[in-house]
Amino acid sequence: MNNDGPAAPCFDATFRARLHDLFCWRRDVRRFRADPLPPGMLEGLIEIACRGPSVGLSQPWRFVVVDDPGRRQGVIANFESCNNEARGEYTGDLSARYAALKLAGLREAPCHLAVFADRSTSVGHGLGRRTMPEMADYSVVTAIFSMWLAARAEGIGMGWVSILDPAMIAIILDVPADWRLIGYFCLGYPQAADDSPELERAGWEQRQPVKDFIFRR
Amino acid sequence: MNNDGPAAPCFDATFRARLHDLFCWRRDVRRFRADPLPPGMLEGLIEIACRGPSVGLSQPWRFVVVDDPGRRQGVIANFESCNNEARGEYTGDLSARYAALKLAGLREAPCHLAVFADRSTSVGHGLGRRTMPEMADYSVVTAIFSMWLAARAEGIGMGWVSILDPAMIAIILDVPADWRLIGYFCLGYPQAADDSPELERAGWEQRQPVKDFIFRR
Repeated sequence: MNNDGPAAPCFDATFRARLHDLFCWRRDVRRFRADPLPPGMLEGLIEIACRGPSVGLSQPWRFVVVDDPGRRQGVIANFESCNNEARGEYTGDLSARYAALKLAGLREAPCHLAVFADRSTSVGHGLGRRTMPEMADYSVVTAIFSMWLAARAEGIGMGWVSILDPAMIAIILDVPADWRLIGYFCLGYPQAADDSPELERAGWEQRQPVKDFIFRR
Repeated sequence: MNNDGPAAPCFDATFRARLHDLFCWRRDVRRFRADPLPPGMLEGLIEIACRGPSVGLSQPWRFVVVDDPGRRQGVIANFESCNNEARGEYTGDLSARYAALKLAGLREAPCHLAVFADRSTSVGHGLGRRTMPEMADYSVVTAIFSMWLAARAEGIGMGWVSILDPAMIAIILDVPADWRLIGYFCLGYPQAADDSPELERAGWEQRQPVKDFIFRR
């Protein structure tokens, strides 16, 4: 019963209420101030990310900090190309509404981070990945979400950019071809805080009732 | 700047320290006590899950609460079959070590929850999913991880079971064939708390240095 280590913390109602606030005020941020993160902050957030669960303790997460202006420009160009293609698939009112959305803060965000999953890792000896190899990718998502929450608790916003061609991003960033892009992230201080998603405020989509997502068997 | 809504919370150093404890003491739990969760607890955790980010606000998460003993038994049988097959692929020392691991608490856990992603949903109008359709799955993982953290803050453990055949689980649970199984979860009060993964304590695998996961471009 864990007699040798530190005592297990007890999380009280006050903490749980603040944790609930954190879930409610975490946003996908696309509007950043230009000021940089404090030195060491990004590395600290990545350290928290690595506390995420991973299938078989495989730790398949690979964090690529993108500082090179040329590579950043390549990512921005890829986003703009993919975004133009996406916009072209909407018609009528939806097309105009899509065009009005701000879907990434790649130009303003002081920090760019690409996160990959290495399904080929031998760490963890393949445990838990035999019938569901995608578990490696899911492990990386839990790491990302850990740092996203920790960032918000520091007043730092993260934005997840998925309007990208993953194969092109791997080339632009010169990473092994078998790494899978899980997400490309902007980090920085947000221009504003909010407790509702920007897409909801923009009228793109609405939150659905929780009961609609629960099924019983 | 959010002038109309509630004031944005400010998360202080005390909260951040407790949040760090939460990340460090969240475990994948396989050893449960038999006592049930309080009434409404599971639904409350699912409500928090639905606060997770979702691509294009598509909310592709589908939570299936599994109470039927026959269906639970079907899931257990599928786990045991998949686990036997997995064990058979290890040789020598690793085979014996695998056999000694406890990899799920399906028989003891008072609560079973299957979570699926519905990639076919029209909610969100496909935004952000064109080049990376797997974003729907990742959205569901953030929802799962939200409830996992919230559960731990309530003293409740979750265990992620991936040693399953996803197609068989969909049949056993009688859900639409195009829903993707993201994870099958046991929930309940853990027999013990710990700040290190059970697989690490069992000597299966070790945590790697964070610096090994950071790359710069």
